[in-house]
Amino acid sequence: MYTQSKIDIVIEQIKSQIANQRFVVGARLPSVRRLAQDLNFSISTVVEAYARLVTEGVLEARAGSGFYVKGQMQAKKIAEHHVQYDREINPLWISRQSLDANEETLKPGCGWLPPEWMPESSLRKALKHAAKSSLKMLVEYPVPHGHMGLRQWIARKNNQYEIQVEPSQILITDSGTQSIDLIFRVHLKAGDVILVDDPCYFNFQALIQAHRLQAIAIPFTTQGPDIESFEQALQYQPKLYLTNSGIHNPTGATLSVQRAYQVAKLADQANLLIVEDDIFSEFEYVPAPRYSTLMGLGRVIQIGSFSKTLTASLRCGYIVSNSQDIEKYIDLKIATNFSSGHLNAEIVFAALMDSQYLKHIESLKKKLNTSMGLCIQRLRQLRIEPVLIPKAGIFLWCKLPSEIDAAELSRRCLKRGLILAPGHAFSQSEGAKHLMRFNVAQCMNPQIFEIIAQVMDTFSFDHEKPNSEMLTNNNETQSN
Amino acid sequence: MYTQSKIDIVIEQIKSQIANQRFVVGARLPSVRRLAQDLNFSISTVVEAYARLVTEGVLEARAGSGFYVKGQMQAKKIAEHHVQYDREINPLWISRQSLDANEETLKPGCGWLPPEWMPESSLRKALKHAAKSSLKMLVEYPVPHGHMGLRQWIARKNNQYEIQVEPSQILITDSGTQSIDLIFRVHLKAGDVILVDDPCYFNFQALIQAHRLQAIAIPFTTQGPDIESFEQALQYQPKLYLTNSGIHNPTGATLSVQRAYQVAKLADQANLLIVEDDIFSEFEYVPAPRYSTLMGLGRVIQIGSFSKTLTASLRCGYIVSNSQDIEKYIDLKIATNFSSGHLNAEIVFAALMDSQYLKHIESLKKKLNTSMGLCIQRLRQLRIEPVLIPKAGIFLWCKLPSEIDAAELSRRCLKRGLILAPGHAFSQSEGAKHLMRFNVAQCMNPQIFEIIAQVMDTFSFDHEKPNSEMLTNNNETQSN
Repeated sequence: MYTQSKIDIVIEQIKSQIANQRFVVGARLPSVRRLAQDLNFSISTVVEAYARLVTEGVLEARAGSGFYVKGQMQAKKIAEHHVQYDREINPLWISRQSLDANEETLKPGCGWLPPEWMPESSLRKALKHAAKSSLKMLVEYPVPHGHMGLRQWIARKNNQYEIQVEPSQILITDSGTQSIDLIFRVHLKAGDVILVDDPCYFNFQALIQAHRLQAIAIPFTTQGPDIESFEQALQYQPKLYLTNSGIHNPTGATLSVQRAYQVAKLADQANLLIVEDDIFSEFEYVPAPRYSTLMGLGRVIQIGSFSKTLTASLRCGYIVSNSQDIEKYIDLKIATNFSSGHLNAEIVFAALMDSQYLKHIESLKKKLNTSMGLCIQRLRQLRIEPVLIPKAGIFLWCKLPSEIDAAELSRRCLKRGLILAPGHAFSQSEGAKHLMRFNVAQCMNPQIFEIIAQVMDTFSFDHEKPNSEMLTNNNETQSN
Repeated sequence: MYTQSKIDIVIEQIKSQIANQRFVVGARLPSVRRLAQDLNFSISTVVEAYARLVTEGVLEARAGSGFYVKGQMQAKKIAEHHVQYDREINPLWISRQSLDANEETLKPGCGWLPPEWMPESSLRKALKHAAKSSLKMLVEYPVPHGHMGLRQWIARKNNQYEIQVEPSQILITDSGTQSIDLIFRVHLKAGDVILVDDPCYFNFQALIQAHRLQAIAIPFTTQGPDIESFEQALQYQPKLYLTNSGIHNPTGATLSVQRAYQVAKLADQANLLIVEDDIFSEFEYVPAPRYSTLMGLGRVIQIGSFSKTLTASLRCGYIVSNSQDIEKYIDLKIATNFSSGHLNAEIVFAALMDSQYLKHIESLKKKLNTSMGLCIQRLRQLRIEPVLIPKAGIFLWCKLPSEIDAAELSRRCLKRGLILAPGHAFSQSEGAKHLMRFNVAQCMNPQIFEIIAQVMDTFSFDHEKPNSEMLTNNNETQSN
């Protein structure tokens, strides 16, 4: 890593890529020739580096097949299955791909709306408004809880869900993800067991890995988590259950009242904290049941942000909790981030207060409704079938024809500038192999379906191939 | 914490306050009467709660003296000393006090400039500019590394220090503190040993506690860290040394070239990472030596932000490192925060590009120079003597008359609306008892020195008191 020979550089780089899951256990490394090209090093340098890594037990050489990442499975249920399953599509794969994507890339796999769908005028007005705000607002830190007006707005929104919240029970953070991170750091330690939905938002898995937690994935049904699996999982003394309230990511399912009540009872018995990620609430026509409505904020913590309906470019999220825990989150936030942005929050608040904002949300729902219908039609023409028809939201969770592997389809589509969200990024269950999440708002361009159709056709031809290992090799060569 | 009796509420609250260091080990709890008043509960409720906490071994009752926090010292060198030393001034004390402060509060203890000293016009212009920026900029996530223009600005600034940096070696974060947090999370695990300066920025201690690290405090001299102590500390195999480059917080000292070279040699031998917090660099007249200049970015990681010279209200910081580590920070940032703010960065960048900004920095330095001289005069009239005269920056590290305890002075001044920064927030050494950090930019109001003088006078009278424990009790009663 420091004053290094070229060989050390290669070794360090591979180790770091293993460390941050770029290469997971069992993954095949690039061919010597390929890596030497990419790094512009000599073949002998790479050979020597690979050889040393084999001696160190980091890699193993398989005769005639190449070098593979050795090493024991991690303690994480999700990571384990994941690793057994697919070697490239790890929890960070879609995030990195989508964030790295350029203007031209088509992103039906990403989790946000196209820019043209966002409330441009409200944002521009909010920025002009901010330019005139008080000097204190322009340059000073906010109070530890964060922007008061924004906390009042969040409190009012919660009151609509019949959740009684005071602004003092709300902490403004820099993102919904940061909110979960703070909650994990306050309530959990490495090795703790938590429950997540199967499937769940892939970045939950990245968070779980970052915190070295053990996650048990509870099958998610059209009614909510499968209650028998949920009850069985309690024997592992989970500390916390992380889920979406309102609209579930990736399935688009909504919790039923009965299921919410069953989960609530079990959570109370097992002294289980519930973290409700409320990030898609603005898309709901009728608010779905929420654990916080049912149980209050004793053991339920609500998090959210404004990245889906307002902007992802100004970081602003929040935590709603009981006042005692909020104090802990605040102290940790000061220690690890010092403060949230006051001006960010002021701009977000001004945009929310803009008369256009509510109209924007209404038209957004209509547009989503239309594109949802259109997307379903186009997918069915490709024999891609929604697992369920969501009541609202941006996601369609779909089943591919049985011969199509979602991860492989995603890899091939990526080479044609199309980013998909394959099932394994959300679930390690066998079935996920043939599942795919589509963001209907990002599916308006018909080209997307043409590319998917063309790439799907290449699969029939694979069937003559002896095994899929061969396939990936061929594939790799084609891509050179 | 959940469906609770009043007794449980009291118990939970005390436990959480112990957990988040509001009450440290050895600390005396409020009197039963006092807490009953504050919570508006009955005395018997509080008595019962205290009794149960004694049974649980959380508290211990000392006859005629009250209830104290029991429990073993933490593994943290800093925390230990800290705990032995003072029971209210913990690392978060000044942060919370300063952030909670209202308009009227005088803040010579805080770490930032008064609003009037900040580049108001550049910021307002930057916001108007942002209001006209592209839709993509308004609503979309930036690339994983963050805002390109800002990274180029940071690279240019580093090149002035003869540090060769590419934008790909820079990650935009949400704050300087978050930068350190990400670095700690990538390179350290709970229990690891790190080196810090004695004294050091109090929030470093909060970070160390949040990460459950063991910190060894190396005495800081006018030349830099005491090299013998530094060498001795290496026997504990520290992983990392966290320090300020440029102007040191709280002492205002600057590293000498010889000392930088000595530390660099030791760091290379011991395979020690160095994190340079460069947050005060804009205040320098002549750049002080930097480890990154001397050693490059192999083992030195530079962090910074714009909160001191531009605004604290828009969160924006950065990490400068080698490209391999930057990849690790990016993956962790995506997992734990998803993204940094693009629009935040654009506004910061536009303000930095404003023709007024450089003029602002120049006039800032002049004003600081003047107020530094004035502040020294006024403090000397109170027999408060600077330990050294800094070359630049906003801090004066001063010695109080021997009879004045800095922590006690701070407590009493706080009651008169004056926030000070006592030595123990920065150091646990015996000497720190009589040391105090002053922010010269926040010392322009003569009232500050009148209040300090009046409060210092109350100390002579304390001398008749048998012991300081009595004192604090009295004091507590006075404050009712």
